[in-house]
Amino acid sequence: MPEDALTKIVSLCRRRGFVFGGSEIYGGLSSIWDYGPLGAKLKKTIKDIWWDTYVNKRGDIVGLDSSIIMHEDVFKASGHLEGFADWLVDCPKCKKRFRIDKLQKIEEDLYKCPECDTTIDTKKNKARKFNLMLKTNMSATEDEPYFGYLRPETAQGIFTNFSNVMDTMHKKIPLGIAQIGKAFRNEVTTGSFIFRMKEFEQMEIEYFVNPATADEFYRTWVEERFTFYVNKIGLRKDSLRLREHGKDELAHYAKACTDIEYNFPFGWSELEGIANRGNFDLTEHSRVSKKDLSYFDDATKEKIVPFVIEPSAGVDRTFFAVISDAYHEEEVKGKIRVVLKLKPRLAPYSVAIFPLLKNRPELVELAKNIFYDIKDKFPALYDDSGAIGKLYRRQDEIGTPLCITVDVESLSDKKVTVRNRDTMQQERIDATNVLGFITERINA
Amino acid sequence: MPEDALTKIVSLCRRRGFVFGGSEIYGGLSSIWDYGPLGAKLKKTIKDIWWDTYVNKRGDIVGLDSSIIMHEDVFKASGHLEGFADWLVDCPKCKKRFRIDKLQKIEEDLYKCPECDTTIDTKKNKARKFNLMLKTNMSATEDEPYFGYLRPETAQGIFTNFSNVMDTMHKKIPLGIAQIGKAFRNEVTTGSFIFRMKEFEQMEIEYFVNPATADEFYRTWVEERFTFYVNKIGLRKDSLRLREHGKDELAHYAKACTDIEYNFPFGWSELEGIANRGNFDLTEHSRVSKKDLSYFDDATKEKIVPFVIEPSAGVDRTFFAVISDAYHEEEVKGKIRVVLKLKPRLAPYSVAIFPLLKNRPELVELAKNIFYDIKDKFPALYDDSGAIGKLYRRQDEIGTPLCITVDVESLSDKKVTVRNRDTMQQERIDATNVLGFITERINA
Repeated sequence: MPEDALTKIVSLCRRRGFVFGGSEIYGGLSSIWDYGPLGAKLKKTIKDIWWDTYVNKRGDIVGLDSSIIMHEDVFKASGHLEGFADWLVDCPKCKKRFRIDKLQKIEEDLYKCPECDTTIDTKKNKARKFNLMLKTNMSATEDEPYFGYLRPETAQGIFTNFSNVMDTMHKKIPLGIAQIGKAFRNEVTTGSFIFRMKEFEQMEIEYFVNPATADEFYRTWVEERFTFYVNKIGLRKDSLRLREHGKDELAHYAKACTDIEYNFPFGWSELEGIANRGNFDLTEHSRVSKKDLSYFDDATKEKIVPFVIEPSAGVDRTFFAVISDAYHEEEVKGKIRVVLKLKPRLAPYSVAIFPLLKNRPELVELAKNIFYDIKDKFPALYDDSGAIGKLYRRQDEIGTPLCITVDVESLSDKKVTVRNRDTMQQERIDATNVLGFITERINA
Repeated sequence: MPEDALTKIVSLCRRRGFVFGGSEIYGGLSSIWDYGPLGAKLKKTIKDIWWDTYVNKRGDIVGLDSSIIMHEDVFKASGHLEGFADWLVDCPKCKKRFRIDKLQKIEEDLYKCPECDTTIDTKKNKARKFNLMLKTNMSATEDEPYFGYLRPETAQGIFTNFSNVMDTMHKKIPLGIAQIGKAFRNEVTTGSFIFRMKEFEQMEIEYFVNPATADEFYRTWVEERFTFYVNKIGLRKDSLRLREHGKDELAHYAKACTDIEYNFPFGWSELEGIANRGNFDLTEHSRVSKKDLSYFDDATKEKIVPFVIEPSAGVDRTFFAVISDAYHEEEVKGKIRVVLKLKPRLAPYSVAIFPLLKNRPELVELAKNIFYDIKDKFPALYDDSGAIGKLYRRQDEIGTPLCITVDVESLSDKKVTVRNRDTMQQERIDATNVLGFITERINA
């Protein structure tokens, strides 16, 4: 991948309607992004594949869709209110603000400003703890506020609903509760495109098990999730690696944690974390809410607080990995061809249909009829807004696996030209056989 | 519908895992609800049908997925910062807080408290304007805050991205931009279950057209959306009605507006509004952002600011209408049977499979095999957690169209019993023909 890969990917996403800046016409908001028409499609496909794999196709996982705004006490119990914070300090000279854990330590309480080399004294310069949760006043007045918190992870909505789910669904552990939804963190260090945002989307499963089986399920989930990225999402195996956390790295409540890392344009970084969280969450919510969150395990005849394995995936990071993995530049006849080699199932459009000449009504009619036939089965696009070379280039850049062109000959021989995105090879096929041809290639 | 219909529906939703209170173990948050496992499924199905109908199946609408948190200037332009507010006043005696527009007026500035009959003087008792938008401090410190706003409607994300979409998608008007997502309003008058929530989800289309054609498209959209609720969602026609707004009722920017009303348990109320918003939004965003949001219409060779038709649907209200419409009580052998007569396509599970005896391994094995066969094609549930009568009752209450029971005879005659939710009739069919049988009934 070239050095300026990140710039190229951001630029492609921008010009092809995958990702725009949030509130862009007003100068944007730091670390907030909007998904354009093609981005919205790709993002939905990623979420649908995940949901289908775990909620629809398995009998041991149920879905949930809990609210973003949660009660303050939820985060007292989870530890976020106290612990989910950065220590920040301002440089006394250049006035820039820094996270202390990112500064070079000179000695106790003393750091050097990375911008102007001034010595920063965290005591004298009044370092402050800054909570990363966003909160909002839900009272009807400004003078008597009470705050709701925008969840920093979807997981807490699952833990707080654990007994609701067990009471109503007549299921036994091992049981997973799966949820896709937005989460919010007021990150101070931001950037790297959609890798770290203030508003982002998660796909989380909390998989509740008997403590005795937790380690085994933890390992199964690490393998399952790695395989998912390769088989279902189409990421190259050599762009992925597993990294198990050392004991010193683990969150205080975690028994074990493995990151699935992806080789992003800026280097290897976390795509997903799979943690064995023990029973920290249920225990703490039980303690603070004073509700019994234990479970009677029929199989072992014991009353337990289940352990939980948490495969926590980022929708936006998966999206980013998919685009990065698919991005290719090739030299074709002395020019650079940019092509997104997406797994066909993930492409925003499976097929694009063009009339070679848009001022020939018979061509337009045939092309449109083919489009209407296809679009009930596959995401399809009709485009007559440019010359054929330009239209091919556009489809290459958005990863459309097949392009179909209707030309003058099509009117007599009833054949159309199909062009393959990856090989650029063209073949003539019967117009009546288009749907069968596509089905074979897209579902492969 | 019985008088206590609302109570019954809330109770069904609670006990069957459709809807729980938000942050319930901590006493809940006013007007915040969570969707449980079955609610999450039904809600996703509603959203998927809408998205598929408009974004996938039409060539004239593209999708979008813009962020919830938006820049303050967005709402300066839209008018929400100034105008999206209630006037509130406290009763000087009982201290309760009221929206002035909901109080009985005695004379200028004087109202009677509905709780304790005290006269409320809006001047003396310091009435205050209360903005309904939720905001959150996105700065890294509390002492120098800058606020982002949680959007009160998804529409603004569409307007602010109008030129991004036009610049990247090579489309012409009429063009719709469709979006599904959360929106937030700090409603003072709340209640009525999920009808009016502080956190809710919208499915909005902004359909941009040449001003000359706006009225025609407005009427087409009213018809299209009404038909959608009947044909795609399965609501009874006589639970729906259209109500066109009078001139005095219209928002200042709207040219026309029609509500699709549903006969909720508490009476006729808005399910969706379809408005002709003129070009108010693009004009205002253009004025405040100083960006040109006009469009050159190739067809008429004029530079225009498009008019927009907005069919704005609530996901939660549609969900509520679906459950209300499907809720039936029937007397069967002297007992009340509660049954959700959902359109089969919307039911959380198409089929439930039971072994008649769960301690007979051969029955369990056959039942599970049938379950595995089905669940790749249809949402299916395997349940052995009760006696058959209890299991049927449970499936009736969650609207499962078909139940399949494997009994001892099944082992010899290779047939299973299929029970129909609505007629309660049972028939024996070949175990090998189960999938064909279901396909025919669910897709009908």
